[in-house]
Amino acid sequence: MTHAILASTSTLHGQDYLEYLIPHLPELYQGIDEILFIPYARPGGISHGEYTAKASEAFSKAGIKVKGIHEFENHAKAVTDAKGIFTGGGNTFLLVSELYRNKVMNVLKEVVKNGTPYMGTSAGTNIGGLSMQTTNDMPIVYPPSFKTLGLVPFNINPHYLDPDPESKHKGETRETRIKEFHGLNSQPVIGLREGSWLELNDNKVTLKGKLRARIFEKDKVPFEVETETDLSDLN
Amino acid sequence: MTHAILASTSTLHGQDYLEYLIPHLPELYQGIDEILFIPYARPGGISHGEYTAKASEAFSKAGIKVKGIHEFENHAKAVTDAKGIFTGGGNTFLLVSELYRNKVMNVLKEVVKNGTPYMGTSAGTNIGGLSMQTTNDMPIVYPPSFKTLGLVPFNINPHYLDPDPESKHKGETRETRIKEFHGLNSQPVIGLREGSWLELNDNKVTLKGKLRARIFEKDKVPFEVETETDLSDLN
Repeated sequence: MTHAILASTSTLHGQDYLEYLIPHLPELYQGIDEILFIPYARPGGISHGEYTAKASEAFSKAGIKVKGIHEFENHAKAVTDAKGIFTGGGNTFLLVSELYRNKVMNVLKEVVKNGTPYMGTSAGTNIGGLSMQTTNDMPIVYPPSFKTLGLVPFNINPHYLDPDPESKHKGETRETRIKEFHGLNSQPVIGLREGSWLELNDNKVTLKGKLRARIFEKDKVPFEVETETDLSDLN
Repeated sequence: MTHAILASTSTLHGQDYLEYLIPHLPELYQGIDEILFIPYARPGGISHGEYTAKASEAFSKAGIKVKGIHEFENHAKAVTDAKGIFTGGGNTFLLVSELYRNKVMNVLKEVVKNGTPYMGTSAGTNIGGLSMQTTNDMPIVYPPSFKTLGLVPFNINPHYLDPDPESKHKGETRETRIKEFHGLNSQPVIGLREGSWLELNDNKVTLKGKLRARIFEKDKVPFEVETETDLSDLN
């Protein structure tokens, strides 16, 4: 009975933080006046307090108050007690390390699977997959495991970027990186472009937003899916 | 007494594999007719054999034969016995995992520090730094440690890319990622653009190639260094 929004990015070009997601918050967090924010991923290294203030400002537009997990002595208990949860983006390695260090990973998985509404953006979305192994982030810290929440039975690549045919850069494209992932791992990967999100409603997973998404399966040619596609059978 | 070339990329736009580095091989591998190739990083998932054939073709232009480490029963002994070594690019997580799994990491560090000439490109260069934590690669496999060879007392970011002022993409720029690295780590990072390499000659580290490189130090404003800059004191 999972209810979640897993969004590729927090912010669209030219928009405010979470702006395009705010209209969808009342439906996700029905009847909830305060949510728990997990700021562990610290984008650009900002503090937990600064990051929570930023989330708070955005959520206030939907009439929802925000409390940072760092304000609680027992982080795992804060998750258990939360009426709704939002995990922001930043560095996925740091996020996952902190989720394990604070003994939050398993509790978070449990409460979200039991119905606590969850939203993730970027790194907060990446951890919704089976593992964090299709993150784009730098390994700035060594987490005890790459395993994540598994709210969906596949992996997610947020901020998915199409190869640039004009590029003279020889670093790997996102598609090549995901192909390398499939050399060693078997779960499908969804490349979520900025502006797309996955809506999880009970056992249904639906692609939302205006864009298509790209699906990568081991030993198969990648393909595009249209918005509103039911992805419940992708595994 | 390290002698090494640590190159940002194997291949420049519009050139053949290793083309721009081949003129420098005779000086690095002086009097050496066969080198050991470490193909562990498997770019795009190609096999060790295919990758070794590719390296072999390039090295033949400098009159040097290539043997893949996978052709030996004891990989660590192959490293000890090698007259010269080249580690190719691909996925750094896979490379580092295999270096540890085959008990090659420490032996490789030892022989290169004792004078066995070494060349790395991309992932093979990244491991020349203190840790692999400024790689751009996807964590497709979980290595036992992020610690690498430490041929230089700083970290390397290969394929360094300047922020694109026109970009509408909201994924982190390379500079932001390195800043996040410095939120948790103190060693300097050199952003090596494609076409640049570090030349290690005994205790001297020099920036080579036609381009400038970008130096990131914790809590300092990043700055550019010109080619031929002596970087021996960067640490």
